Amino acid sequence: MERAIQIVSTAKYLPEQTVTSEMLDEKLGLPPGWSYKSSRVRTRWFVTDETSSQMGAYAAEEALRRAGLAVEDIDCIISVSGTMEQPIPCHAALIHQRLTQGVPPVPAFDINSTCLSFITGLDLASHAIQAGQYHRVLFVASEIASIGLNWEQKKSSVLFGDGAAAVVVQKSAPESPARILASRMETYSQGADYTRIRGGGTRYHSRTNPPPEYFLFDMDGKAVYRMVARYLPGFVDRLLAQAGVGIDDLDLVIPHQASGIAMELMRKKLGIREEKYMTILEDHGNVIAASLPMALHEAVQQGRLARGSLVLMLGTSAGTSLGGVVLAY
Amino acid sequence: MERAIQIVSTAKYLPEQTVTSEMLDEKLGLPPGWSYKSSRVRTRWFVTDETSSQMGAYAAEEALRRAGLAVEDIDCIISVSGTMEQPIPCHAALIHQRLTQGVPPVPAFDINSTCLSFITGLDLASHAIQAGQYHRVLFVASEIASIGLNWEQKKSSVLFGDGAAAVVVQKSAPESPARILASRMETYSQGADYTRIRGGGTRYHSRTNPPPEYFLFDMDGKAVYRMVARYLPGFVDRLLAQAGVGIDDLDLVIPHQASGIAMELMRKKLGIREEKYMTILEDHGNVIAASLPMALHEAVQQGRLARGSLVLMLGTSAGTSLGGVVLAY
Repeated sequence: MERAIQIVSTAKYLPEQTVTSEMLDEKLGLPPGWSYKSSRVRTRWFVTDETSSQMGAYAAEEALRRAGLAVEDIDCIISVSGTMEQPIPCHAALIHQRLTQGVPPVPAFDINSTCLSFITGLDLASHAIQAGQYHRVLFVASEIASIGLNWEQKKSSVLFGDGAAAVVVQKSAPESPARILASRMETYSQGADYTRIRGGGTRYHSRTNPPPEYFLFDMDGKAVYRMVARYLPGFVDRLLAQAGVGIDDLDLVIPHQASGIAMELMRKKLGIREEKYMTILEDHGNVIAASLPMALHEAVQQGRLARGSLVLMLGTSAGTSLGGVVLAY
Repeated sequence: MERAIQIVSTAKYLPEQTVTSEMLDEKLGLPPGWSYKSSRVRTRWFVTDETSSQMGAYAAEEALRRAGLAVEDIDCIISVSGTMEQPIPCHAALIHQRLTQGVPPVPAFDINSTCLSFITGLDLASHAIQAGQYHRVLFVASEIASIGLNWEQKKSSVLFGDGAAAVVVQKSAPESPARILASRMETYSQGADYTRIRGGGTRYHSRTNPPPEYFLFDMDGKAVYRMVARYLPGFVDRLLAQAGVGIDDLDLVIPHQASGIAMELMRKKLGIREEKYMTILEDHGNVIAASLPMALHEAVQQGRLARGSLVLMLGTSAGTSLGGVVLAY
């Protein structure tokens, strides 16, 4: 289902504190090289005193600056983050407050499918842009993973980093090749318990003193990998068929930066050539829902996309969901 | 911006435990009648052991049954809840799991603008339905307010109840009058701190031991009321102008069931006749984002809507946001 949508600009924000894998080896009492070998992440960034909405607003300001736009040129702000700064109000309202102090009062709301939130948000909002409801939408994904890591689960805790990414999207000019060709999401909820943070919502509320580890990230990496390996190839076939393109037609594949070894296995399984596979994991870590728009930003920055380049953005998320969008940049 | 969208069926689920205002007067050591007089709520329901995703799935099953549909007839599940069961995965994935056990693997994701989530979700998803991406979408709002109430804040804590509502939406048949005429949202984020739960996200994480009341609902009711009174009349004028209808053309106004006194003041300020104003507050309380779809369900049940009836759904939310949709039922 085509939509004449154009990515206007992208930006990222990384907090100040660098955390190398050597630092984590030492912190966790692991042999030198273990954290890198397990995660393929050399460096990730952790917040010191930044809040998530601050990081999101910094990335948004930078995306606007790069496009030569002011905040008044935006008519909708959508948070596509997988973690929240606080349960109420929604994340986008807090970013709106940091960015605009309330003026103009453009709509602000959240779309959340954990790590796939940017794809879900872009997919849904593009219909509203195509229909003319919004002229120019600001997407912001801002994540603080570090506060919720369970250092007892070494394999997952060495994967993640903090940071934010922002993307401005508008309707394409008539002469532009930019468009969304197809989008798809599948949720295999038999895997809903494979990736979770249980505490902090209504089920395991602080007030009822659940075990402290309920408030920390918990992942059964092997179960997730088995599920993704089983369903992802068919999913990609269905998505590319919808778009009417073959895997070799793609100029670039931007995957969710989940984990180094899994990303590489998936690349081979899907038959994607290494030079067409965008990875930023090594110097960012897995930044939850900010990973996909941040990798898009890096692809733009590195000159790997020209107007009209055919791109597959593809990912997996807690849920367990698979999601992707095929677009002409 | 018209969209040929039809509400196919609606349902609600209320937990088993009835909590009357007399019970709250006694619990809080207040004079008999205080809780009712302050809130205009006689009865609300609180969960005992139901989880939010369970309540959501119960309401969804009932909505499907009423429409003579099976879960296979749905091709997207959207949670439009203002509270979450747990931070990861998203609420819709947990409802998907309860409802389908993963089969079929239709997309599941959350749209959140606190109490306006149903309006935001209906608005956005209706474009995707209109464009043909989804044939039939299930919206679920499921809320457990009770666990987060601060009984020291008597005025706000006597307002809320728990419960869930579900709505099935599809593209209208060509001969049907059902459609969305217009939608609008405005976020005045200078009021982002007026209504909040601070703890449970990345800013005030359990791990850092913030004050216990940070995990509880906190509202500056007077500040919210002043802001809403200032901006709502203009907002409604702009929304009705977009729809091309006047306030007297409306067959029914379904407001968010925020609080009895504020709802009545707003009704008068907007010049809406009492018999055209849908209230379910007295025997449900404010059920956060479930209030609007639950009031829609009650309007359908009470025979107050015929096909083609002109309806304004209108609300306010934490953020502070105003939102509304004008539809022909």
